Amino acid sequence: MTNSASSQTAARDICVCLEWLTPQHKEQIRSTALPLGFTPHFFDLTEQDAARECLQHSEIYYGHTPALLRSAPATLQWYCCSFAGVEPYCKDPTFFANPNCLLTNSNSYGVTIAEHVMMTALMLLRQYPQYQQLITQREWANRLPFRAMRDTTFTLLGTGDIGQLTAQRLRAMEVRGIVGLNRSGRAPAGGLFDEVLPISQLDEVLPRTEVLIMSLPSTPQTAGIMDARRIALLPKGAFLINVGRGNALDQDALVAALRSGALGGAALDVVEPEPLPQDHDLWEAPNLILTPHVAGNMIPGHTRDANVAMFCEDLGNYAAGRPLAHLVDRSRGY
Amino acid sequence: MTNSASSQTAARDICVCLEWLTPQHKEQIRSTALPLGFTPHFFDLTEQDAARECLQHSEIYYGHTPALLRSAPATLQWYCCSFAGVEPYCKDPTFFANPNCLLTNSNSYGVTIAEHVMMTALMLLRQYPQYQQLITQREWANRLPFRAMRDTTFTLLGTGDIGQLTAQRLRAMEVRGIVGLNRSGRAPAGGLFDEVLPISQLDEVLPRTEVLIMSLPSTPQTAGIMDARRIALLPKGAFLINVGRGNALDQDALVAALRSGALGGAALDVVEPEPLPQDHDLWEAPNLILTPHVAGNMIPGHTRDANVAMFCEDLGNYAAGRPLAHLVDRSRGY
Repeated sequence: MTNSASSQTAARDICVCLEWLTPQHKEQIRSTALPLGFTPHFFDLTEQDAARECLQHSEIYYGHTPALLRSAPATLQWYCCSFAGVEPYCKDPTFFANPNCLLTNSNSYGVTIAEHVMMTALMLLRQYPQYQQLITQREWANRLPFRAMRDTTFTLLGTGDIGQLTAQRLRAMEVRGIVGLNRSGRAPAGGLFDEVLPISQLDEVLPRTEVLIMSLPSTPQTAGIMDARRIALLPKGAFLINVGRGNALDQDALVAALRSGALGGAALDVVEPEPLPQDHDLWEAPNLILTPHVAGNMIPGHTRDANVAMFCEDLGNYAAGRPLAHLVDRSRGY
Repeated sequence: MTNSASSQTAARDICVCLEWLTPQHKEQIRSTALPLGFTPHFFDLTEQDAARECLQHSEIYYGHTPALLRSAPATLQWYCCSFAGVEPYCKDPTFFANPNCLLTNSNSYGVTIAEHVMMTALMLLRQYPQYQQLITQREWANRLPFRAMRDTTFTLLGTGDIGQLTAQRLRAMEVRGIVGLNRSGRAPAGGLFDEVLPISQLDEVLPRTEVLIMSLPSTPQTAGIMDARRIALLPKGAFLINVGRGNALDQDALVAALRSGALGGAALDVVEPEPLPQDHDLWEAPNLILTPHVAGNMIPGHTRDANVAMFCEDLGNYAAGRPLAHLVDRSRGY
């Protein structure tokens, strides 16, 4: 990591192009930047021409617009992406005129994604899709069996921000068990998991999984990880929730497992490709809760607050020449 | 309270008529009862003739069948109802041949009802009904605004078992605030609420309520408590969830508030009457999540386990002449 630019003495501009900043957020960025010798310039998404102009002399860009990034000259030292997923920028070096440009992402979506996971897990366990179908037909039928979250064992494929925030919430529901899976098999601090295993042991964990929650980043290792063979390792009636990346899952195999009843249900907030093509089988797969990639919605206030706080934290690190807390390893992809 | 029967020396029989007992549950009841001098007899709901016969010489009945209770002679000393709601037995003294028969209820449904509340609160806050309508039309539209539970203030009308278990789960979601309302205004132990007020102050609390959760028992005081005037005190876009009793709410006023957009949405698991008549407006009220009185579903394992544990606990109390822990005040109705 090189922060060579931080020793420059010329005007140090920050181009901020975001659609959701409040006056308070702008003031927070300004009062962080000015004492450090930086000047922030704010643009809405409708002001991209002005933002492009500003980027020509900016050291830092905070936003999420790929075309703006491409327009930045080699003097750009740091791109703070306001999104969590930055794999396109890792795969394609032509985004950066400066090959050493630092890249950070913004994992401020964990809480709202964890809330989405809790919602869909409860809906699946409590047979909400089936009850809703009966209600649509004006049938007051209250004998469908369902499971309580408290009686259930969860497997979290991915123990990062989302996995940990989800585990914390599942604990409060007094669930029967939580198994975590990640690359290293090392347990994150906090004791939230009953057991943490390396992903290499996934095949052993799936047969004892009642609800599988996938929150994996998109990397070559995670693409297609839940293939037809592994879906078939889940016990009959198990549930699968994916809030990571759509390509981690064999969608055709999922549809087949839902149709046959091998799986009790599923909830997908991410699919491949997005938007989902009009003739895709997922639209009408039985017992599937489909949402259009909204789990990490940016609108909730705390998500935006955390996003700005992360940028300000790393601006302090950048100015002081310290490692950036949210730095992305461009070779690893997250 | 009179436990006069507990000093009898004749055969002391317990008639248990429940459809969901496992062999383990029966063994638990047997091993509690026999050392105390009682003999339990188990019947399925399909064996009501035999159960009625057994009741003729039973001191205790554990079940939920009104017709069986009516058939019991004056020698019945204690009816342990396996349901939580026992208001019919309080209103109508003809159920009991013995006017001093003890009545207990079984509040083992709190956890599953709290899970239902969490599910519906998340669905309402996250605009699930609207997203689902778009998905049904194969529209991949991800710009509907929604709120995070974490950013939200909750009012719990009722701070009993359900209210407390819900508050505990809301705490883990790091919600902005929880106000409780009950008869006395005294806070239950545990510090789960930011504030607890008497129900007499409901009118002051409603205007600052983002999600109202109603878990009141059915009493003359709670009937119609959320009338049209009080529904109108909620801020625009607020949500209302009822898991208590249907008659606590003016349903016509609710439908009007949903249609006008005054309320952002509602979730009713209890309605008046049940089942809901075929031509009722609630079936198609906008942004209404309707479920057919399933929140306290008996099927989840822990619900049944807790039900049996409560009976066994009170059997010990009964045999020892101690007050019953789950005794219902037949004049108050809960």
